[in-house]
Amino acid sequence: MVGSVQYSKNKFKNIDKSLRRFFVDKIENRVVLDGENHHHLANVLRLKVGDEIILCPNDGFDYHFLITSIKKNESDAKLIRQEKNLSTSDIEITLYFASLKGDNSELVVQKAVELGVKNIIVFTSQFTNNKNINLARLNKISENASKQSGRANLVKVEFLLFEEVLKRLPTHSEHFFFYEKEKIHNIRSHISEKGLYKNSSIIVGSEGGFSEDEVGEIEKLKIKPLSLGKLILRAETASIAALSIVMHELGHLE
Amino acid sequence: MVGSVQYSKNKFKNIDKSLRRFFVDKIENRVVLDGENHHHLANVLRLKVGDEIILCPNDGFDYHFLITSIKKNESDAKLIRQEKNLSTSDIEITLYFASLKGDNSELVVQKAVELGVKNIIVFTSQFTNNKNINLARLNKISENASKQSGRANLVKVEFLLFEEVLKRLPTHSEHFFFYEKEKIHNIRSHISEKGLYKNSSIIVGSEGGFSEDEVGEIEKLKIKPLSLGKLILRAETASIAALSIVMHELGHLE
Repeated sequence: MVGSVQYSKNKFKNIDKSLRRFFVDKIENRVVLDGENHHHLANVLRLKVGDEIILCPNDGFDYHFLITSIKKNESDAKLIRQEKNLSTSDIEITLYFASLKGDNSELVVQKAVELGVKNIIVFTSQFTNNKNINLARLNKISENASKQSGRANLVKVEFLLFEEVLKRLPTHSEHFFFYEKEKIHNIRSHISEKGLYKNSSIIVGSEGGFSEDEVGEIEKLKIKPLSLGKLILRAETASIAALSIVMHELGHLE
Repeated sequence: MVGSVQYSKNKFKNIDKSLRRFFVDKIENRVVLDGENHHHLANVLRLKVGDEIILCPNDGFDYHFLITSIKKNESDAKLIRQEKNLSTSDIEITLYFASLKGDNSELVVQKAVELGVKNIIVFTSQFTNNKNINLARLNKISENASKQSGRANLVKVEFLLFEEVLKRLPTHSEHFFFYEKEKIHNIRSHISEKGLYKNSSIIVGSEGGFSEDEVGEIEKLKIKPLSLGKLILRAETASIAALSIVMHELGHLE
Protein backbone atom coordinates (compact mmCIF):
# COMPACT_ATOMS: atom_id res chain seq x y z
CA MET A 1 0.00 0.00 0.00
CA VAL A 2 2.72 2.45 0.97
CA GLY A 3 4.35 2.30 -2.46
CA SER A 4 1.17 3.35 -4.17
CA VAL A 5 0.75 6.56 -2.20
CA GLN A 6 0.19 9.48 -4.56
CA TYR A 7 0.01 13.20 -4.04
CA SER A 8 -3.53 14.32 -3.35
CA LYS A 9 -3.21 17.37 -5.55
CA ASN A 10 -6.53 18.92 -4.68
CA LYS A 11 -5.61 19.26 -1.01
CA PHE A 12 -2.43 21.05 -1.94
CA LYS A 13 -4.33 24.02 -3.30
CA ASN A 14 -6.28 24.60 -0.15
CA ILE A 15 -3.63 24.57 2.52
CA ASP A 16 -0.86 27.10 2.63
CA LYS A 17 2.29 25.07 2.04
CA SER A 18 4.22 26.96 4.70
CA LEU A 19 1.87 25.61 7.34
CA ARG A 20 2.82 22.02 6.45
CA ARG A 21 6.17 22.60 8.07
CA PHE A 22 6.99 20.58 11.21
CA PHE A 23 9.98 20.96 13.49
CA VAL A 24 11.46 17.63 14.65
CA ASP A 25 14.50 16.46 16.60
CA LYS A 26 15.93 14.18 13.93
CA ILE A 27 15.26 12.77 10.48
CA GLU A 28 15.19 9.19 9.24
CA ASN A 29 13.86 7.72 6.00
CA ARG A 30 10.64 6.82 7.76
CA VAL A 31 9.37 8.87 10.67
CA VAL A 32 6.56 8.63 13.17
CA LEU A 33 4.93 11.91 14.17
CA ASP A 34 3.13 11.97 17.48
CA GLY A 35 2.04 14.47 20.12
CA GLU A 36 1.43 18.01 18.94
CA ASN A 37 2.88 17.44 15.46
CA HIS A 38 0.46 14.56 14.87
CA HIS A 39 -2.45 16.55 16.26
CA HIS A 40 -1.64 19.53 14.05
CA LEU A 41 -1.25 17.36 10.95
CA ALA A 42 -4.34 15.19 11.46
CA ASN A 43 -6.82 17.40 13.30
CA VAL A 44 -5.87 20.99 12.53
CA LEU A 45 -4.59 20.83 8.95
CA ARG A 46 -6.68 17.67 8.29
CA LEU A 47 -4.00 16.30 5.98
CA LYS A 48 -4.55 12.90 4.37
CA VAL A 49 -2.45 9.92 3.37
CA GLY A 50 -0.57 11.02 0.25
CA ASP A 51 -0.19 14.64 1.31
CA GLU A 52 3.28 16.14 1.42
CA ILE A 53 4.79 17.69 4.53
CA ILE A 54 8.14 19.30 5.30
CA LEU A 55 10.13 18.21 8.34
CA CYS A 56 12.86 20.48 9.71
CA PRO A 57 15.46 19.15 12.15
CA ASN A 58 17.06 22.61 12.46
CA ASP A 59 19.92 21.83 10.08
CA GLY A 60 19.08 24.35 7.34
CA PHE A 61 17.47 21.72 5.10
CA ASP A 62 13.84 21.04 4.25
CA TYR A 63 13.02 17.32 4.23
CA HIS A 64 9.95 16.57 2.13
CA PHE A 65 7.92 13.60 3.37
CA LEU A 66 4.81 11.85 2.11
CA ILE A 67 2.24 10.85 4.70
CA THR A 68 1.83 7.06 4.56
CA SER A 69 -0.64 6.49 7.38
CA ILE A 70 -2.64 8.47 9.90
CA LYS A 71 -3.70 6.68 13.08
CA LYS A 72 -5.44 7.94 16.20
CA ASN A 73 -2.32 9.07 18.05
CA GLU A 74 0.41 9.08 15.44
CA SER A 75 1.14 9.46 11.75
CA ASP A 76 3.80 7.82 9.56
CA ALA A 77 5.65 9.49 6.72
CA LYS A 78 8.46 8.57 4.34
CA LEU A 79 11.23 10.77 2.99
CA ILE A 80 10.90 11.69 -0.68
CA ARG A 81 13.51 14.43 -1.08
CA GLN A 82 15.78 16.85 0.71
CA GLU A 83 16.35 20.48 -0.27
CA LYS A 84 18.55 23.26 1.05
CA ASN A 85 16.21 25.88 2.56
CA LEU A 86 16.95 29.02 0.58
CA SER A 87 16.10 31.43 3.37
CA THR A 88 18.78 29.97 5.63
CA SER A 89 21.78 32.28 5.93
CA ASP A 90 24.88 32.73 8.04
CA ILE A 91 23.50 35.92 9.61
CA GLU A 92 23.29 35.53 13.38
CA ILE A 93 21.50 38.54 14.78
CA THR A 94 20.31 38.16 18.37
CA LEU A 95 17.52 40.42 19.57
CA TYR A 96 17.51 41.35 23.27
CA PHE A 97 14.25 43.09 24.14
CA ALA A 98 12.79 44.07 27.49
CA SER A 99 9.46 42.43 28.32
CA LEU A 100 6.52 44.54 27.11
CA LYS A 101 2.96 45.07 28.24
CA GLY A 102 -0.10 43.45 26.67
CA ASP A 103 0.64 41.35 23.61
CA ASN A 104 3.54 43.48 22.44
CA SER A 105 6.20 40.93 23.43
CA GLU A 106 4.34 38.45 21.23
CA LEU A 107 4.27 40.93 18.37
CA VAL A 108 8.02 41.48 18.65
CA VAL A 109 8.75 37.73 18.67
CA GLN A 110 6.52 37.08 15.66
CA LYS A 111 7.98 39.90 13.57
CA ALA A 112 11.59 39.19 14.59
CA VAL A 113 11.27 35.55 13.48
CA GLU A 114 9.74 36.62 10.15
CA LEU A 115 12.58 39.08 9.59
CA GLY A 116 15.21 36.36 10.09
CA VAL A 117 16.52 36.81 13.65
CA LYS A 118 18.69 33.95 14.92
CA ASN A 119 18.02 34.14 18.67
CA ILE A 120 15.66 36.09 20.89
CA ILE A 121 16.28 37.04 24.51
CA VAL A 122 13.48 38.64 26.49
CA PHE A 123 14.72 40.31 29.66
CA THR A 124 13.48 42.30 32.62
CA SER A 125 15.13 45.49 33.83
CA GLN A 126 14.47 48.22 36.37
CA PHE A 127 11.65 49.94 34.47
CA THR A 128 10.05 46.80 33.04
CA ASN A 129 6.38 46.80 33.98
CA ASN A 130 5.53 43.33 32.80
CA LYS A 131 7.60 40.78 34.68
CA ASN A 132 5.17 37.90 34.00
CA ILE A 133 6.73 36.34 30.96
CA ASN A 134 5.00 33.36 29.39
CA LEU A 135 8.04 31.80 27.75
CA ALA A 136 6.11 28.76 26.51
CA ARG A 137 3.68 31.01 24.68
CA LEU A 138 6.46 33.14 23.18
CA ASN A 139 8.19 29.97 21.94
CA LYS A 140 4.92 28.73 20.42
CA ILE A 141 4.55 32.05 18.60
CA SER A 142 8.14 31.76 17.42
CA GLU A 143 7.51 28.24 16.09
CA ASN A 144 4.37 29.34 14.24
CA ALA A 145 6.17 32.34 12.76
CA SER A 146 9.00 30.05 11.60
CA LYS A 147 6.45 27.85 9.84
CA GLN A 148 4.60 30.79 8.35
CA SER A 149 7.73 32.42 6.99
CA GLY A 150 9.14 29.16 5.61
CA ARG A 151 12.20 28.99 7.87
CA ALA A 152 14.09 25.73 8.32
CA ASN A 153 15.17 26.56 11.84
CA LEU A 154 13.42 27.27 15.09
CA VAL A 155 14.19 30.49 16.94
CA LYS A 156 14.44 29.81 20.65
CA VAL A 157 13.09 32.53 22.93
CA GLU A 158 15.07 32.64 26.15
CA PHE A 159 14.53 34.65 29.34
CA LEU A 160 17.38 36.44 31.11
CA LEU A 161 17.63 38.89 33.96
CA PHE A 162 19.35 42.17 33.08
CA GLU A 163 22.50 41.06 34.94
CA GLU A 164 22.62 37.92 32.80
CA VAL A 165 22.18 39.99 29.64
CA LEU A 166 25.31 41.90 30.61
CA LYS A 167 27.23 38.62 30.82
CA ARG A 168 25.89 37.36 27.49
CA LEU A 169 26.50 40.51 25.42
CA PRO A 170 30.28 40.00 25.05
CA THR A 171 29.58 36.83 23.00
CA HIS A 172 28.57 39.06 20.05
CA SER A 173 30.99 40.84 17.71
CA GLU A 174 29.09 44.12 17.64
CA HIS A 175 26.01 45.73 19.15
CA PHE A 176 23.12 47.97 18.20
CA PHE A 177 21.99 49.32 21.56
CA PHE A 178 19.07 51.74 21.35
CA TYR A 179 18.56 54.37 24.03
CA GLU A 180 15.98 57.11 23.65
CA LYS A 181 18.16 59.77 25.29
CA GLU A 182 20.98 59.31 22.77
CA LYS A 183 20.85 62.13 20.23
CA ILE A 184 24.02 61.81 18.16
CA HIS A 185 25.00 58.27 17.21
CA ASN A 186 22.75 56.16 15.03
CA ILE A 187 22.76 52.93 13.01
CA ARG A 188 24.40 54.56 10.02
CA SER A 189 27.19 56.32 11.93
CA HIS A 190 27.74 53.18 14.00
CA ILE A 191 28.19 50.99 10.92
CA SER A 192 30.59 53.50 9.30
CA GLU A 193 32.64 53.59 12.46
CA LYS A 194 32.60 49.96 13.61
CA GLY A 195 31.74 48.00 10.47
CA LEU A 196 28.92 45.53 10.05
CA TYR A 197 29.05 42.10 11.66
CA LYS A 198 26.82 39.13 10.97
CA ASN A 199 27.02 38.16 14.63
CA SER A 200 25.59 41.31 16.20
CA SER A 201 23.15 42.01 18.99
CA ILE A 202 20.22 44.40 18.93
CA ILE A 203 19.23 45.70 22.38
CA VAL A 204 15.93 47.52 22.99
CA GLY A 205 14.39 48.55 26.32
CA SER A 206 10.80 48.45 27.57
CA GLU A 207 8.15 51.20 27.54
CA GLY A 208 9.92 52.79 30.52
CA GLY A 209 13.35 52.65 28.86
CA PHE A 210 16.60 51.92 30.65
CA SER A 211 17.71 53.48 33.93
CA GLU A 212 20.88 55.54 33.89
CA ASP A 213 22.59 52.86 35.98
CA GLU A 214 21.69 50.24 33.41
CA VAL A 215 22.96 52.37 30.54
CA GLY A 216 26.17 52.82 32.53
CA GLU A 217 26.52 49.05 32.94
CA ILE A 218 26.06 48.51 29.21
CA GLU A 219 28.51 51.29 28.35
CA LYS A 220 31.12 49.63 30.58
CA LEU A 221 31.10 46.83 27.99
CA LYS A 222 32.19 49.43 25.39
CA ILE A 223 28.71 49.35 23.87
CA LYS A 224 27.58 52.78 22.67
CA PRO A 225 23.95 53.92 22.74
CA LEU A 226 22.28 54.69 19.40
CA SER A 227 19.29 56.81 18.39
CA LEU A 228 16.44 55.82 16.10
CA GLY A 229 15.60 59.40 15.18
CA LYS A 230 13.55 62.27 16.50
CA LEU A 231 10.15 60.60 16.56
CA ILE A 232 9.18 58.71 19.70
CA LEU A 233 8.85 55.05 18.70
CA ARG A 234 6.98 52.61 20.88
CA ALA A 235 9.28 49.93 22.26
CA GLU A 236 7.90 47.21 19.98
CA THR A 237 8.22 49.46 16.93
CA ALA A 238 11.84 50.19 17.83
CA SER A 239 12.65 46.45 17.89
CA ILE A 240 10.92 45.73 14.58
CA ALA A 241 12.33 48.81 12.81
CA ALA A 242 15.87 48.26 14.12
CA LEU A 243 15.84 44.62 13.06
CA SER A 244 14.46 45.51 9.60
CA ILE A 245 17.20 48.09 9.07
CA VAL A 246 20.06 45.88 10.33
CA MET A 247 18.85 42.95 8.21
CA HIS A 248 18.61 45.28 5.21
CA GLU A 249 22.14 46.53 5.81
CA LEU A 250 23.34 42.91 6.01
CA GLY A 251 21.63 42.16 2.68
CA HIS A 252 19.17 39.69 4.20
CA LEU A 253 16.03 41.38 2.86
CA GLU A 254 16.93 41.11 -0.80
CA MET B 1 -7.48 85.30 37.60
CA VAL B 2 -6.12 84.25 34.25
CA GLY B 3 -2.90 86.15 34.78
CA SER B 4 -2.10 84.21 37.94
CA VAL B 5 -2.24 80.77 36.33
CA GLN B 6 0.89 78.78 37.16
CA TYR B 7 2.23 75.41 36.01
CA SER B 8 1.00 72.60 38.24
CA LYS B 9 4.36 70.85 38.25
CA ASN B 10 3.24 67.73 40.07
CA LYS B 11 0.80 66.79 37.34
CA PHE B 12 3.50 67.07 34.73
CA LYS B 13 5.35 64.10 36.12
CA ASN B 14 2.40 61.78 35.94
CA ILE B 15 1.13 62.28 32.43
CA ASP B 16 3.20 61.47 29.42
CA LYS B 17 3.82 64.82 27.77
CA SER B 18 3.25 63.37 24.32
CA LEU B 19 -0.37 62.67 25.22
CA ARG B 20 -1.01 66.35 25.93
CA ARG B 21 -0.88 67.01 22.21
CA PHE B 22 -4.08 68.18 20.48
CA PHE B 23 -4.69 68.64 16.78
CA VAL B 24 -6.67 71.76 15.92
CA ASP B 25 -7.72 73.62 12.78
CA LYS B 26 -6.15 76.96 13.64
CA ILE B 27 -4.26 78.78 16.36
CA GLU B 28 -4.94 82.10 18.06
CA ASN B 29 -3.50 83.64 21.21
CA ARG B 30 -6.47 82.36 23.16
CA VAL B 31 -8.31 79.24 22.10
CA VAL B 32 -11.43 77.40 23.18
CA LEU B 33 -11.27 73.60 23.05
CA ASP B 34 -14.56 71.78 22.77
CA GLY B 35 -15.89 68.43 21.58
CA GLU B 36 -13.48 65.53 21.69
CA ASN B 37 -10.43 67.66 22.48
CA HIS B 38 -12.16 69.10 25.55
CA HIS B 39 -13.38 65.66 26.64
CA HIS B 40 -9.88 64.19 26.29
CA LEU B 41 -8.28 67.07 28.18
CA ALA B 42 -10.80 67.28 31.02
CA ASN B 43 -12.11 63.74 31.47
CA VAL B 44 -9.46 61.40 30.09
CA LEU B 45 -6.19 63.17 30.95
CA ARG B 46 -7.91 65.03 33.84
CA LEU B 47 -5.75 68.07 33.27
CA LYS B 48 -6.26 71.11 35.49
CA VAL B 49 -6.09 74.88 35.16
CA GLY B 50 -2.39 75.74 34.93
CA ASP B 51 -1.40 72.59 33.06
CA GLU B 52 0.43 72.92 29.79
CA ILE B 53 -0.81 71.45 26.53
CA ILE B 54 0.51 71.45 22.97
CA LEU B 55 -1.76 72.44 20.09
CA CYS B 56 -0.84 71.45 16.55
CA PRO B 57 -2.52 73.08 13.55
CA ASN B 58 -0.58 70.86 11.13
CA ASP B 59 2.00 73.51 10.25
CA GLY B 60 5.11 71.79 11.64
CA PHE B 61 5.11 73.88 14.84
CA ASP B 62 4.18 72.97 18.42
CA TYR B 63 2.16 75.70 20.13
CA HIS B 64 2.42 75.48 23.91
CA PHE B 65 -0.69 76.66 25.74
CA LEU B 66 -1.60 77.02 29.39
CA ILE B 67 -5.08 75.93 30.42
CA THR B 68 -6.89 78.93 31.87
CA SER B 69 -10.31 77.46 32.58
CA ILE B 70 -12.13 74.15 32.32
CA LYS B 71 -15.91 74.24 32.05
CA LYS B 72 -18.47 71.50 31.47
CA ASN B 73 -18.30 71.48 27.68
CA GLU B 74 -15.22 73.50 26.81
CA SER B 75 -11.82 74.59 28.04
CA ASP B 76 -9.89 77.80 27.48
CA ALA B 77 -6.15 78.10 27.00
CA LYS B 78 -3.65 80.85 26.21
CA LEU B 79 -0.55 80.70 24.07
CA ILE B 80 2.73 80.79 25.97
CA ARG B 81 5.26 79.86 23.28
CA GLN B 82 5.75 78.40 19.83
CA GLU B 83 8.47 75.89 18.88
CA LYS B 84 9.48 74.22 15.64
CA ASN B 85 8.68 70.51 16.02
CA LEU B 86 12.04 68.79 15.56
CA SER B 87 10.59 65.60 14.13
CA THR B 88 9.01 67.45 11.20
CA SER B 89 10.92 66.86 7.99
CA ASP B 90 10.52 67.36 4.26
CA ILE B 91 10.26 63.59 3.67
CA GLU B 92 6.94 62.77 2.01
CA ILE B 93 6.60 59.00 1.89
CA THR B 94 3.09 57.75 1.10
CA LEU B 95 2.22 54.20 2.11
CA TYR B 96 -0.33 52.38 -0.05
CA PHE B 97 -1.35 49.14 1.66
CA ALA B 98 -4.13 46.70 0.83
CA SER B 99 -6.74 46.27 3.55
CA LEU B 100 -5.79 43.45 5.95
CA LYS B 101 -7.69 41.01 8.13
CA GLY B 102 -8.25 41.35 11.88
CA ASP B 103 -6.52 44.33 13.45
CA ASN B 104 -3.56 44.24 11.08
CA SER B 105 -4.63 47.35 9.14
CA GLU B 106 -4.68 49.18 12.47
CA LEU B 107 -1.21 47.88 13.30
CA VAL B 108 0.14 49.11 9.96
CA VAL B 109 -1.40 52.57 10.42
CA GLN B 110 -0.05 52.92 13.96
CA LYS B 111 3.49 51.85 13.05
CA ALA B 112 3.59 53.85 9.81
CA VAL B 113 2.66 57.04 11.68
CA GLU B 114 5.32 56.37 14.32
CA LEU B 115 7.92 55.82 11.61
CA GLY B 116 7.17 59.18 10.00
CA VAL B 117 4.97 58.42 6.99
CA LYS B 118 3.35 61.48 5.37
CA ASN B 119 0.16 59.95 3.94
CA ILE B 120 -1.54 56.57 4.16
CA ILE B 121 -3.80 55.06 1.53
CA VAL B 122 -5.63 51.82 2.33
CA PHE B 123 -6.98 50.14 -0.78
CA THR B 124 -8.86 47.05 -1.88
CA SER B 125 -7.75 44.83 -4.73
CA GLN B 126 -8.76 41.52 -6.27
CA PHE B 127 -7.37 39.29 -3.50
CA THR B 128 -8.28 41.56 -0.58
CA ASN B 129 -10.31 39.57 1.91
CA ASN B 130 -11.29 42.38 4.19
CA LYS B 131 -13.30 44.96 2.26
CA ASN B 132 -14.96 46.41 5.40
CA ILE B 133 -12.70 49.30 6.13
CA ASN B 134 -13.43 51.41 9.19
CA LEU B 135 -11.78 54.60 8.00
CA ALA B 136 -12.91 56.61 11.04
CA ARG B 137 -11.20 54.10 13.33
CA LEU B 138 -8.01 54.04 11.25
CA ASN B 139 -7.90 57.85 11.38
CA LYS B 140 -8.39 57.79 15.15
CA ILE B 141 -5.48 55.35 15.47
CA SER B 142 -3.40 57.61 13.23
CA GLU B 143 -4.22 60.63 15.43
CA ASN B 144 -3.30 58.77 18.60
CA ALA B 145 -0.06 57.52 17.07
CA SER B 146 0.81 61.09 16.01
CA LYS B 147 0.28 62.25 19.60
CA GLN B 148 2.22 59.32 21.04
CA SER B 149 5.20 59.82 18.76
CA GLY B 150 5.27 63.59 19.23
CA ARG B 151 4.45 64.54 15.65
CA ALA B 152 3.21 68.03 14.79
CA ASN B 153 1.12 66.86 11.88
CA LEU B 154 -1.80 64.53 11.42
CA VAL B 155 -1.49 61.67 8.95
CA LYS B 156 -4.73 61.30 7.03
CA VAL B 157 -5.76 57.75 6.18
CA GLU B 158 -7.62 57.68 2.89
CA PHE B 159 -9.44 54.86 1.13
CA LEU B 160 -9.04 54.20 -2.59
CA LEU B 161 -10.10 51.48 -4.97
CA PHE B 162 -7.24 49.79 -6.83
CA GLU B 163 -8.16 51.69 -10.01
CA GLU B 164 -7.88 54.97 -8.12
CA VAL B 165 -4.51 53.93 -6.71
CA LEU B 166 -3.28 53.54 -10.30
CA LYS B 167 -4.32 57.13 -11.03
CA ARG B 168 -2.71 58.48 -7.87
CA LEU B 169 0.67 56.74 -8.18
CA PRO B 170 2.05 59.05 -10.91
CA THR B 171 1.98 61.94 -8.39
CA HIS B 172 5.07 60.44 -6.68
CA SER B 173 8.64 60.76 -7.94
CA GLU B 174 9.59 57.14 -7.31
CA HIS B 175 8.04 53.91 -6.04
CA PHE B 176 8.85 50.94 -3.85
CA PHE B 177 6.36 48.34 -5.04
CA PHE B 178 6.67 44.99 -3.27
CA TYR B 179 5.56 41.81 -4.98
CA GLU B 180 6.24 38.40 -3.48
CA LYS B 181 6.95 36.76 -6.86
CA GLU B 182 9.76 39.19 -7.68
CA LYS B 183 13.11 37.47 -7.08
CA ILE B 184 15.74 39.83 -8.48
CA HIS B 185 15.18 43.52 -7.79
CA ASN B 186 15.15 44.85 -4.23
CA ILE B 187 15.27 48.11 -2.29
CA ARG B 188 19.04 48.35 -2.53
CA SER B 189 19.30 47.67 -6.27
CA HIS B 190 16.35 49.97 -6.91
CA ILE B 191 17.95 52.87 -5.06
CA SER B 192 21.29 52.36 -6.87
CA GLU B 193 19.49 52.37 -10.19
CA LYS B 194 16.85 55.05 -9.71
CA GLY B 195 18.15 57.16 -6.84
CA LEU B 196 16.33 58.01 -3.65
CA TYR B 197 13.46 60.49 -3.62
CA LYS B 198 11.83 62.11 -0.62
CA ASN B 199 8.48 61.99 -2.37
CA SER B 200 8.20 58.22 -2.93
CA SER B 201 5.41 55.71 -2.59
CA ILE B 202 5.56 52.33 -0.85
CA ILE B 203 3.03 49.82 -2.21
CA VAL B 204 2.24 46.57 -0.37
CA GLY B 205 -0.50 44.03 -1.14
CA SER B 206 -2.81 42.08 1.14
CA GLU B 207 -2.42 38.55 2.53
CA GLY B 208 -3.45 37.21 -0.88
CA GLY B 209 -0.99 39.41 -2.76
CA PHE B 210 -1.64 41.06 -6.11
CA SER B 211 -3.18 39.36 -9.13
CA GLU B 212 -1.05 39.14 -12.27
CA ASP B 213 -3.41 41.60 -13.97
CA GLU B 214 -2.90 44.09 -11.18
CA VAL B 215 0.89 43.71 -11.32
CA GLY B 216 0.62 44.29 -15.08
CA GLU B 217 -1.37 47.49 -14.51
CA ILE B 218 1.22 48.78 -12.06
CA GLU B 219 4.10 47.85 -14.37
CA LYS B 220 2.42 49.85 -17.17
CA LEU B 221 3.19 52.91 -15.01
CA LYS B 222 6.91 51.98 -15.30
CA ILE B 223 6.89 50.84 -11.68
CA LYS B 224 9.07 47.78 -11.13
CA PRO B 225 8.28 45.08 -8.54
CA LEU B 226 10.75 44.59 -5.69
CA SER B 227 11.53 41.71 -3.35
CA LEU B 228 11.92 41.83 0.43
CA GLY B 229 14.07 38.69 0.56
CA LYS B 230 13.61 34.95 0.71
CA LEU B 231 11.60 34.73 3.90
CA ILE B 232 7.83 34.96 3.60
CA LEU B 233 6.80 38.14 5.41
CA ARG B 234 3.24 38.69 6.49
CA ALA B 235 1.64 41.61 4.68
CA GLU B 236 1.71 43.87 7.74
CA THR B 237 5.36 43.02 8.43
CA ALA B 238 6.25 43.87 4.82
CA SER B 239 4.71 47.35 5.20
CA ILE B 240 6.45 48.06 8.50
CA ALA B 241 9.84 46.67 7.41
CA ALA B 242 9.76 48.43 4.02
CA LEU B 243 8.89 51.74 5.63
CA SER B 244 11.62 51.32 8.26
CA ILE B 245 14.22 50.64 5.58
CA VAL B 246 13.17 53.46 3.25
CA MET B 247 13.07 55.93 6.16
CA HIS B 248 16.52 54.71 7.24
CA GLU B 249 17.86 55.18 3.71
CA LEU B 250 16.41 58.70 3.68
CA GLY B 251 18.16 59.46 6.97
CA HIS B 252 14.91 59.94 8.89
CA LEU B 253 15.69 57.44 11.64
CA GLU B 254 18.83 59.13 12.87
